[in-house]
Amino acid sequence: MKEAVRRGTDVNEKVCQWVAPEELESLLELELPDTGESEVRLLQHCRQVIRYSVNTAHPRFFNQLFAGLDYHALVGRFITETLNTSQYTYEISPVFVLMEDVVLKKLRELIGWMTGDGIFCPGGSMSNMFAINLARHRLYPHVKQRGLWVVPRLVIFTSEEGHYSLTKGAAFLGLGTDNVWTVKTDGRFVPVDVSDTETNRHTGLPLMVSATAGTTILGAFDPLAEIADVCQQHGVWLHVDAAWGGGALLSKRHRHLLAGIERADSVTWNPHKMLMAGLQCSAFLLKDQTDLLGSAHAAGARYLFQTDRCYQPRYDTGDRSVQCGRRVDCLKLWLMWKAIGTRGLRDRVNRAFACTRSPQFVNVCFWYIPPCLRGGEETPDFWQQLGRVAPLVKQRMVVKGSMMVGYQPHGKHVNFFRQILISPQVTREDLDFFLDEIERLGSDFQPM
Amino acid sequence: MKEAVRRGTDVNEKVCQWVAPEELESLLELELPDTGESEVRLLQHCRQVIRYSVNTAHPRFFNQLFAGLDYHALVGRFITETLNTSQYTYEISPVFVLMEDVVLKKLRELIGWMTGDGIFCPGGSMSNMFAINLARHRLYPHVKQRGLWVVPRLVIFTSEEGHYSLTKGAAFLGLGTDNVWTVKTDGRFVPVDVSDTETNRHTGLPLMVSATAGTTILGAFDPLAEIADVCQQHGVWLHVDAAWGGGALLSKRHRHLLAGIERADSVTWNPHKMLMAGLQCSAFLLKDQTDLLGSAHAAGARYLFQTDRCYQPRYDTGDRSVQCGRRVDCLKLWLMWKAIGTRGLRDRVNRAFACTRSPQFVNVCFWYIPPCLRGGEETPDFWQQLGRVAPLVKQRMVVKGSMMVGYQPHGKHVNFFRQILISPQVTREDLDFFLDEIERLGSDFQPM
Repeated sequence: MKEAVRRGTDVNEKVCQWVAPEELESLLELELPDTGESEVRLLQHCRQVIRYSVNTAHPRFFNQLFAGLDYHALVGRFITETLNTSQYTYEISPVFVLMEDVVLKKLRELIGWMTGDGIFCPGGSMSNMFAINLARHRLYPHVKQRGLWVVPRLVIFTSEEGHYSLTKGAAFLGLGTDNVWTVKTDGRFVPVDVSDTETNRHTGLPLMVSATAGTTILGAFDPLAEIADVCQQHGVWLHVDAAWGGGALLSKRHRHLLAGIERADSVTWNPHKMLMAGLQCSAFLLKDQTDLLGSAHAAGARYLFQTDRCYQPRYDTGDRSVQCGRRVDCLKLWLMWKAIGTRGLRDRVNRAFACTRSPQFVNVCFWYIPPCLRGGEETPDFWQQLGRVAPLVKQRMVVKGSMMVGYQPHGKHVNFFRQILISPQVTREDLDFFLDEIERLGSDFQPM
Repeated sequence: MKEAVRRGTDVNEKVCQWVAPEELESLLELELPDTGESEVRLLQHCRQVIRYSVNTAHPRFFNQLFAGLDYHALVGRFITETLNTSQYTYEISPVFVLMEDVVLKKLRELIGWMTGDGIFCPGGSMSNMFAINLARHRLYPHVKQRGLWVVPRLVIFTSEEGHYSLTKGAAFLGLGTDNVWTVKTDGRFVPVDVSDTETNRHTGLPLMVSATAGTTILGAFDPLAEIADVCQQHGVWLHVDAAWGGGALLSKRHRHLLAGIERADSVTWNPHKMLMAGLQCSAFLLKDQTDLLGSAHAAGARYLFQTDRCYQPRYDTGDRSVQCGRRVDCLKLWLMWKAIGTRGLRDRVNRAFACTRSPQFVNVCFWYIPPCLRGGEETPDFWQQLGRVAPLVKQRMVVKGSMMVGYQPHGKHVNFFRQILISPQVTREDLDFFLDEIERLGSDFQPM
């Protein structure tokens, strides 16, 4: 473990040890044996697992919306694993039932809610699905019992920059992907009149608007206050997917990006992203005080949720989820917060903003234009050629193991890099290295 | 951590340290501070968290469908936390993409499938929901796009002993709890003609049958072969919820309980239960070879699942889930399996069966009849009085901290104990203690 932590965070080590799938398969001896193996062999296996895994805590890992390593959070995660309990009842999870409550309350306060509700979910996608289900349950509580056939078609609005989990959620919850209406945008959300003719074209009833605070690719923030006006006018549930951008709420300087979030009905916020709590830590937060989570989700199984216990049933929080067993996701965040305080978290967030100086958030999106293409912006196949640069550079980078950064095409834009800056372990030298390394890996690019 | 493991597994320590919620809240100092605290204070906090948490690995913890502690699995979980990666792409999870595949293959082989598919889910409830969604997608693939409004009402069949997640799943996926038809049973599943008049009464189309292998309370096994006959005849998806009973597949002596499981379309199996892999480890297994998981769930987000990578896109398995980020749940099971082999797991399962000698599984369900009620079985309020015994004994047990066992009412039966036997750390003395302790705690019971 020490080796994993030490090598995984040492800037002089590789970020990844690239091996093609077929080769790695034979290297790892993954087959499960009839008879147990020796401790020596087991230790070798552990070393191999660590050696060929990607060092997501490495200062030159800019590839995902998570990065870095917080040692206190890691201890919290070890304790969680050691205690091996499920978050459903006070009886077997007394500490964590109370702790979850305190942590969720703190997150709600940062949103601007002095009351409310919430629960940790296995990932932001699940949190977003909870939002859809609660919006549906508030509007038509009898759907829980009778199914969607007894209500009109329901429509979810989000921007075309919104996360794909809205679409996945609409499919999973039986609403259908056609009934997610993606609003066109210039990278931000354009407020819509949810009752306008476009809606009627879908012959559906507006169920909810899911605004995004920190979009996945560009890091854009929808104008929440304007959207809240529209939602309020039409009585439509406003969900804010702040899975990524929620971290900015910690910063006095940058929390204006989420101005209006306090007017939302529900919020998704993943502290495993910018706050570095470790995978997974996704809070689903609610303004509701009527136990909508309970009425939408509860099944009241008596074998688990007894009502004749020596404490009040409200401390058995598990029935408010669609899960039965539920991992403890609060301790890692709680312990880290105790260790560095709100100020420590704020400093980290501010530092990430300072490192990027991007117009909005800490997603730095850019093209690298290799020498042979420079000045050719007007030539007919410039963009097509440019779209080949990022995959080539990325491939070389991964094989070399020097760093990791994501890329993607997006709308009418060909492949561009998306560098994500989170970890306080990232230094100015790492950022210089980053740019130089792209130059080194891509400067000999030749058009096809 | 050492303290947590040592005290948590030592039979001379308490199983739990009972404190009422209001009191525990003030003891724990849960509030999150503005400024970070000292390492000394943090260590105190960790000690408190451990001290007041329930020792689920204690040999006298019989309270849930998980128990005990496997040290190799625990190491696997520590490594998982240290590496902090997400299971969606080969790019950042090369080892675990391949490992998940191998582990799922092994579990499928134990079912009797030489081919197939699968994925780890955050808990058995989610696995069961995947089953519902795939059954729906096979029957009506256009629901994904257009929603449930374009198809007739769909009905799920399960026994009244089936797990509540089927009902929760039906609500969440938009089918409605009314459309889960629970078949009456003598503790086992009574095969039904899914096209019979009872079905028509629901004016719904049979979508799937969810049979249970190892029911939550009684540990009963539905007759899978008979149910498979009915499903085959009507072309209905057969799901087997073997979240709890799947462990019996390891045992040559007891796997007959699941005879016919190989005829299922899908299976839920939670190795965090009987195999002691640690929370959570839930496998959703499929006979399907047509990538139904992909076609039902995929959204094809290009920022995450690039198609111009230096390896085949099929190694990016994340889009086959409804989650985006997904925890690594395979390593703990894999490492434990490497350490003790299939034989070691089999021995554990056989040992649990031997400890219980129950008619079917390792759920030991019983009433404790205190002296004052004995012989009064025919008196009018006998059962009502008996129903008060388990809560009283449980309350005293928890306050004393001597052991933990669950109880519940069930159907027409008043509160009875349900003792679950899993952990190989449980000795004959623990079992003797268990019975004596119930006698000690309950013998002075007085009718009200």
